[in-house]
Amino acid sequence: MKAEIIAVGTELLLGQIVNTNARYLSQGLAALGIDVFFQTVVGDNDARIRQAIETARSRADLLLFTGGLGPTMDDLTKDVLAGYLGRRILIHEPTMEAMERFFASRGSHMVESNRRQANWIEGSEPLENEAGLAVGNALEQDGTRYILLPGPPKEMVPMFEGPATRWLLAEIGAGAPLHSRILRFAGIGESRLEHELIDLIESQSDPTIAPYAKEGEVAIRLSSKSADEAQALDRIERMAQRIRERLGAHIYAEEDISLEEAVLRRLRTRRMRVSVAESCTGGLLAELITGIPGSSGEFLGGIVTYTNTMKHKLLGIPLAQLDGPDAPGAVSASTAALMAQRVAETTGSDWGVSVTGVAGPGSSEGKPVGLVYIGIARKGGEVQTHELNAGGNRDMVRIRAAKHALYRLWLALAE
Amino acid sequence: MKAEIIAVGTELLLGQIVNTNARYLSQGLAALGIDVFFQTVVGDNDARIRQAIETARSRADLLLFTGGLGPTMDDLTKDVLAGYLGRRILIHEPTMEAMERFFASRGSHMVESNRRQANWIEGSEPLENEAGLAVGNALEQDGTRYILLPGPPKEMVPMFEGPATRWLLAEIGAGAPLHSRILRFAGIGESRLEHELIDLIESQSDPTIAPYAKEGEVAIRLSSKSADEAQALDRIERMAQRIRERLGAHIYAEEDISLEEAVLRRLRTRRMRVSVAESCTGGLLAELITGIPGSSGEFLGGIVTYTNTMKHKLLGIPLAQLDGPDAPGAVSASTAALMAQRVAETTGSDWGVSVTGVAGPGSSEGKPVGLVYIGIARKGGEVQTHELNAGGNRDMVRIRAAKHALYRLWLALAE
Repeated sequence: MKAEIIAVGTELLLGQIVNTNARYLSQGLAALGIDVFFQTVVGDNDARIRQAIETARSRADLLLFTGGLGPTMDDLTKDVLAGYLGRRILIHEPTMEAMERFFASRGSHMVESNRRQANWIEGSEPLENEAGLAVGNALEQDGTRYILLPGPPKEMVPMFEGPATRWLLAEIGAGAPLHSRILRFAGIGESRLEHELIDLIESQSDPTIAPYAKEGEVAIRLSSKSADEAQALDRIERMAQRIRERLGAHIYAEEDISLEEAVLRRLRTRRMRVSVAESCTGGLLAELITGIPGSSGEFLGGIVTYTNTMKHKLLGIPLAQLDGPDAPGAVSASTAALMAQRVAETTGSDWGVSVTGVAGPGSSEGKPVGLVYIGIARKGGEVQTHELNAGGNRDMVRIRAAKHALYRLWLALAE
Repeated sequence: MKAEIIAVGTELLLGQIVNTNARYLSQGLAALGIDVFFQTVVGDNDARIRQAIETARSRADLLLFTGGLGPTMDDLTKDVLAGYLGRRILIHEPTMEAMERFFASRGSHMVESNRRQANWIEGSEPLENEAGLAVGNALEQDGTRYILLPGPPKEMVPMFEGPATRWLLAEIGAGAPLHSRILRFAGIGESRLEHELIDLIESQSDPTIAPYAKEGEVAIRLSSKSADEAQALDRIERMAQRIRERLGAHIYAEEDISLEEAVLRRLRTRRMRVSVAESCTGGLLAELITGIPGSSGEFLGGIVTYTNTMKHKLLGIPLAQLDGPDAPGAVSASTAALMAQRVAETTGSDWGVSVTGVAGPGSSEGKPVGLVYIGIARKGGEVQTHELNAGGNRDMVRIRAAKHALYRLWLALAE
């Protein structure tokens, strides 16, 4: 089955919002074994929505709409599709009753325009909206299937995952579902990963191997389409094993979690806590860790020292270490080691992690942009340091440095 | 002029990445006075890219492609368009020479596939790629204009803003150029901003008023299309003045800079320095500030205290203030005040800024998610605190809290 996703909304064409729905629905359809060949965005305009429907019908069997189901006169999707298919718009009574209850429970009166959210294309399957008011629709006509979902992600996602998926599975039933597994990597860049696996990637058939980079990390999705689940899972596992043999030390998870989440899990298992001392990452490492809900159990604190004076004042690094003709300087392995040790001592953490480097745009201490030192200190124990040459602009150097520090901590936690 | 944005890349159809390029280019074209009526996403497939070109040609005068200019056999955009237009693919010699220099400077040899990045559609205008290797193309044929940009945003953005915009302005020159000004707001949400300006927004004609939200901030773009520059600027200024009269206290810049940049500029002018103490933002405030190149002149350091013990150890907050049946607790105005004062003292900064609150998902100390206190302390002087009720999920609470702290510091720096 070939699908086209049609997002309706002038705000998308003006660039006021990003079309995250298209991405979400593409992933969701892939998981159901449905190929998406086109995504289209069209504004709140009768003629152009009709044009989009005609074009999509000529090249897809399933048209998945998102947006344009709301209460305003700009919300046209149902009206235009009903007109195109020669069907009437009816009122979906259960939705209308639910809306009346909703407004009554808030002690307010339902304004007339809200009635539009109960509009329903004659003969279609209503799709319940558990997180909002507008009812969705699903129907088939002349061999083409149509699904209408709301635009706000918090309404669209549950409607897609619930009633829309149930309707689709009932319609396409016999098709081969897609099975997939994700492998997440750390401490390796996208190009080296591709280089190491190029023979597998180039000869891929089943499972398919899709590497992708996101937010300073690299992942691979292995997918197999088969009605025989055991066979598909076996094929995926055999390919995963071939990849593990080559790059196992870099695989930090076989599920869709971030590296900071993986690090927190290892800390939790070992009942240990960490603190960080940052220079060039300027708080990013702490921010990544504390972005995970519940991190306060394993993360104690962070110290951002953006000048030599602060490294001295807040972490007690001797000034002679930092400044002077023969000093190692702030960007050095020995300073990274001291920062990691001192932050562990000051906070009383089991682990101290430090990052110091040159984020750019200019060089520092005569050292090049991208040179970064990571320190990993064990309370009262040894400290290890790592040198990294991170490419890219200031933002890239910072994210790569922070992720590399997490990777080194993750490795140390395995020992 | 009617434009269509065509993003080429199977990774978009698989939902592996979000189409942020379409949003960026939609905004950029709107700023040039060009209407975008459709956005299309198509995979790395010869026949379907050709189909997308045909469809777009039937409904737009300008086709803006992004993606598919890279070195691999999957990168097809130039080949397919050249074939469609009956033109040859040539080698763009300056790009080839630049690539040879690039690989030589890294001491590596250029692999053959890289040559594809110097491909160039006969008779087109080459668009220089200052951040990557693949050259872009711009051309006109039979009344339709085509622009080919790379997919990676870090290459696409400078190529669009530089050579592609210059080419477009030269091509559409005779039309009325668009003049625009951006107003950037802090301390106010998108819905309240729209509420305050709804009469102006609903009756807009010239200049147009486009509010948009981005990364925890709100901005408005005023645009006027006129051959008479003085008249356009005058109209924009009069509208800006009406907005200033209503919301002047929230306008932190009339140019496209972030709030942290505006804060750093005020600090620089006053030759002052700041440090931060963070709880619920977990390093995000420091990370935002240090994201600006050159911030080390004004930013000394940050202390992230994620537990009560750390607030005591690193900032010297009395434990009786934080814990106990009658204690104000970590999330309180008095704790925010102490954190701000203590970080200013400890670091010797002119200003200390603190954030403490409940980022969620769960409540804390019996206080609701989204409740945040900000402290702003002047060295040896008074301290002010502010309560904020930030809506949204954990990420939204964190970014709103950090931006609100910056806003309060920005206000304090004006006094």
